[in-house]
Amino acid sequence: MTNTDSDTTRRSRREGGGRRNTGGDGRHPVQQLPRRKLKRQFPAMEIVSADELEAIHQASLKVLSEIGMDFTLPEARDMLKKAGARVEGERVRFDPAMIEELIATVPSEFTFHARNPENSQRIGGNYISFGTVASPPNASDMDGGRRTGNYQDYRNFVKLGQYFNCINFLSGYPVEPIDIHASVRHLEALRDMVLLTDKPFHAYSLGRERIRDGIEIARIGRGISHDQLEQEPSLFTIINTNSPLKLDTPMLQGILEMSSRNQIVCVTPFTLAGAMAPVTVAGALVEQNAEALAGIAFTQLVRKGAPVIYGGFTSNVDMKSGAPAFGTPEYMKATIVGGQLARRYKIPFRTSNTCAANTVDAQAAYESVFSLWGLTMGGGNLIMHGAGWLEGGLVASFEKFVLDCDLIQMVSEFMQPLETTEDALGVEAIREVGPGGHFFGAQHTLARYTNAFYSPIISDWRNNQQWLAAGKPEAWQKANAVWKQALADYQQPFIEPAIRDELNAFVEKRKAEGGAPTDF
Amino acid sequence: MTNTDSDTTRRSRREGGGRRNTGGDGRHPVQQLPRRKLKRQFPAMEIVSADELEAIHQASLKVLSEIGMDFTLPEARDMLKKAGARVEGERVRFDPAMIEELIATVPSEFTFHARNPENSQRIGGNYISFGTVASPPNASDMDGGRRTGNYQDYRNFVKLGQYFNCINFLSGYPVEPIDIHASVRHLEALRDMVLLTDKPFHAYSLGRERIRDGIEIARIGRGISHDQLEQEPSLFTIINTNSPLKLDTPMLQGILEMSSRNQIVCVTPFTLAGAMAPVTVAGALVEQNAEALAGIAFTQLVRKGAPVIYGGFTSNVDMKSGAPAFGTPEYMKATIVGGQLARRYKIPFRTSNTCAANTVDAQAAYESVFSLWGLTMGGGNLIMHGAGWLEGGLVASFEKFVLDCDLIQMVSEFMQPLETTEDALGVEAIREVGPGGHFFGAQHTLARYTNAFYSPIISDWRNNQQWLAAGKPEAWQKANAVWKQALADYQQPFIEPAIRDELNAFVEKRKAEGGAPTDF
Repeated sequence: MTNTDSDTTRRSRREGGGRRNTGGDGRHPVQQLPRRKLKRQFPAMEIVSADELEAIHQASLKVLSEIGMDFTLPEARDMLKKAGARVEGERVRFDPAMIEELIATVPSEFTFHARNPENSQRIGGNYISFGTVASPPNASDMDGGRRTGNYQDYRNFVKLGQYFNCINFLSGYPVEPIDIHASVRHLEALRDMVLLTDKPFHAYSLGRERIRDGIEIARIGRGISHDQLEQEPSLFTIINTNSPLKLDTPMLQGILEMSSRNQIVCVTPFTLAGAMAPVTVAGALVEQNAEALAGIAFTQLVRKGAPVIYGGFTSNVDMKSGAPAFGTPEYMKATIVGGQLARRYKIPFRTSNTCAANTVDAQAAYESVFSLWGLTMGGGNLIMHGAGWLEGGLVASFEKFVLDCDLIQMVSEFMQPLETTEDALGVEAIREVGPGGHFFGAQHTLARYTNAFYSPIISDWRNNQQWLAAGKPEAWQKANAVWKQALADYQQPFIEPAIRDELNAFVEKRKAEGGAPTDF
Repeated sequence: MTNTDSDTTRRSRREGGGRRNTGGDGRHPVQQLPRRKLKRQFPAMEIVSADELEAIHQASLKVLSEIGMDFTLPEARDMLKKAGARVEGERVRFDPAMIEELIATVPSEFTFHARNPENSQRIGGNYISFGTVASPPNASDMDGGRRTGNYQDYRNFVKLGQYFNCINFLSGYPVEPIDIHASVRHLEALRDMVLLTDKPFHAYSLGRERIRDGIEIARIGRGISHDQLEQEPSLFTIINTNSPLKLDTPMLQGILEMSSRNQIVCVTPFTLAGAMAPVTVAGALVEQNAEALAGIAFTQLVRKGAPVIYGGFTSNVDMKSGAPAFGTPEYMKATIVGGQLARRYKIPFRTSNTCAANTVDAQAAYESVFSLWGLTMGGGNLIMHGAGWLEGGLVASFEKFVLDCDLIQMVSEFMQPLETTEDALGVEAIREVGPGGHFFGAQHTLARYTNAFYSPIISDWRNNQQWLAAGKPEAWQKANAVWKQALADYQQPFIEPAIRDELNAFVEKRKAEGGAPTDF
């Protein structure tokens, strides 16, 4: 990953260089775990029985059969009608057998290709991949405060997504760069995904033109042919249903464009119990499942075997205020049952690291760890909003990004198997030390101490005197220093000059054409 | 739990009354979940295979057989020698068969009796009970800062332990009341356990006299005979081994006094990997297991069938500084394997809600939730330090106490089964609302919204504008208001005047006798 692209390197260094000695300790790079392919070694947790799961499944089929779902795009309704669905106006009703038949062709595992093959992700099975935060309209950091999303913050978050090894993909725009006109925003933003990172990424389904541009940028970035792209999924898009029970035109166009090219679609209903879904977790899951199944079935109608992910995003609202809540016990349960449903269908499962806190305090941490608990135990495969999500997704926070990287690393360490070799069992070390001794100088300790334990990014384990002398830093303050250090140390990944030139030419041509319509 | 003890009520009200309108919103009591008997409904997690578990078990037996353990009390060594152990000086070596035979009589479940029968706890199996923090030498709150433990803070923490329904027992002194002379401290402190709470509690094994006084105070508090006390375990004590591989005199005396009276002993090695135990988690577990088995075996030698708990307290140190670390990935793994070992022996499992943070920030929260994750999934039964632990146990924090109660409540909610009745599945609600609608006014929502979701104690779900207008409160600030409100609202539980008089007479007599020796 040596950077030989001297132009962009210099540009990058100018932006980051001034911070080199203002953040972190300025002396050495942020200590982090190496890049890992993370795989769950324990069975996923189940909190409903097979019968209860079947009841949720059957209730979803009943919803799709008796109530149906609105598909606002005529082309999609025509396809569904031909395939046997009952269509009345925008409403589409599905017989259970049609759903079961269509979803049977979904691949249970596939590879999500990055332009750097070392960053390609295996999706499904026991694999788990963490992405950045995506889509907040605002950014914040502890120095500059909360502000409208902008291009500079966008680029900085993208760089952090590249910098931290525990981040496996870019979930979308880590913050919306609102200062770029909507017609060309996707072009600038996706060009940066390719140039500033070599990890796999996402494009938004906001009309045909944008998602087509996204597919082309992903193809150019990888330097592959159209044919190879169809063999190798290299882009993913989130398809949010308009809950309850509606799939709208831009989203359906997204499925048409992406699935027909064998790119990855993640169908994610946003079913807040008590608001867009029933006030019970089970009811919200029935609705989530009905909407997900309908969207997933449609991807397979577009192209049998196209890669698709079952997205779970069921949480609850505060019934006193209507405010969405995240990282709650209800969120944990919905995540775990969502995983049970996805595994029932043998479809990879997407979930998220969420919180509703307004600042990077204890609440932000506990809501996030409860989310990680649910999604790790529940068998999440593709984890959106892995790092940086604050305020229920309204803010991308630089400090939260670093905090979350530490949390993800801890989860990653937790998932490593426990070493139980004879040497690890340490009987000889215990014999050497004996009753009343200590292990600091034992041979066993000296041979292993450097990498014996996880070394956290921000946890402060100093004693009280040292901590007082250091000015009583809180976790967010250490996180604040770390993201600055990371940006200062960020290195732009190598890209073939020919690929970079082709990418730039494509983006400039599309900008000259006026980009994409903004009447979506 | 009406308070009819007017003397102590008045005393209590004088202490708490002045705060009534200074903390919280002063208008209504803290919103909390009702008292619950918490039971794990899912299988405990396993992260090592049966073979790996067996390897740890066998390595522990090898340690006890070949290396042995120091027992500093001659009386204990004599008993062990008579039972077949090999004794040389202070060193005691056990044949594996002797250990296996002795631990076979440990009860797998028992009841821990409180003076209020509604607060008695079932220990073992799938039951889970949370206690207060225990034993910090310092207290802190955000107004008064960090200070040496004292009687007033002690009493306030004990009251919080009574006030919060999610706290099932008192784990020990929630903070050490250092301003009471050590000779009589246990008398004053344990009297308060009986008068200020009606939950079950702990007495320290610091020499024969103290633990005998503790047993007598527990008996008097329950108003029962010595015979009934022997039928109904009503007190527990922590027996910490002096790791590595030493059981010292006060602890052995504690086992002798407690087990002979059929009271509860919890044998807890404190095996910090890299310091008092091998630098590997597996090695530290081998040592933990050897020490726990030796202590547990001794309890059964004292009295077959005496209730005993397997304590796990393995964590790691920061190898750069030697500082203990808590709530780490290593801590989670050690907790889960500790649970596997305890279940192998069919012995109830004790673990803890730990953190190493210096203040109630994001770190305090994530270390605690990682701890709760490990101990909940790993099948902990008796959870020490459930609420209030900060700075690796050096500080009892009032704000952390409230934060932890919220975390415990969330864990408790997570553990409630998901309702999947036909009404909960909500198909009719989905039909009523239909595509594009919302559920705020649905019949199903109106019928259920009051108790639909967990209502947190401190999480702030207000939007950014409201949160800014409220002065940007962080989680610890809400916690600060809540503990003051809780102390203001605290009600001393009813106690029979005759019991109170007997208790006071006993304490005054023992104080007049000079209390207990302080040369321990």
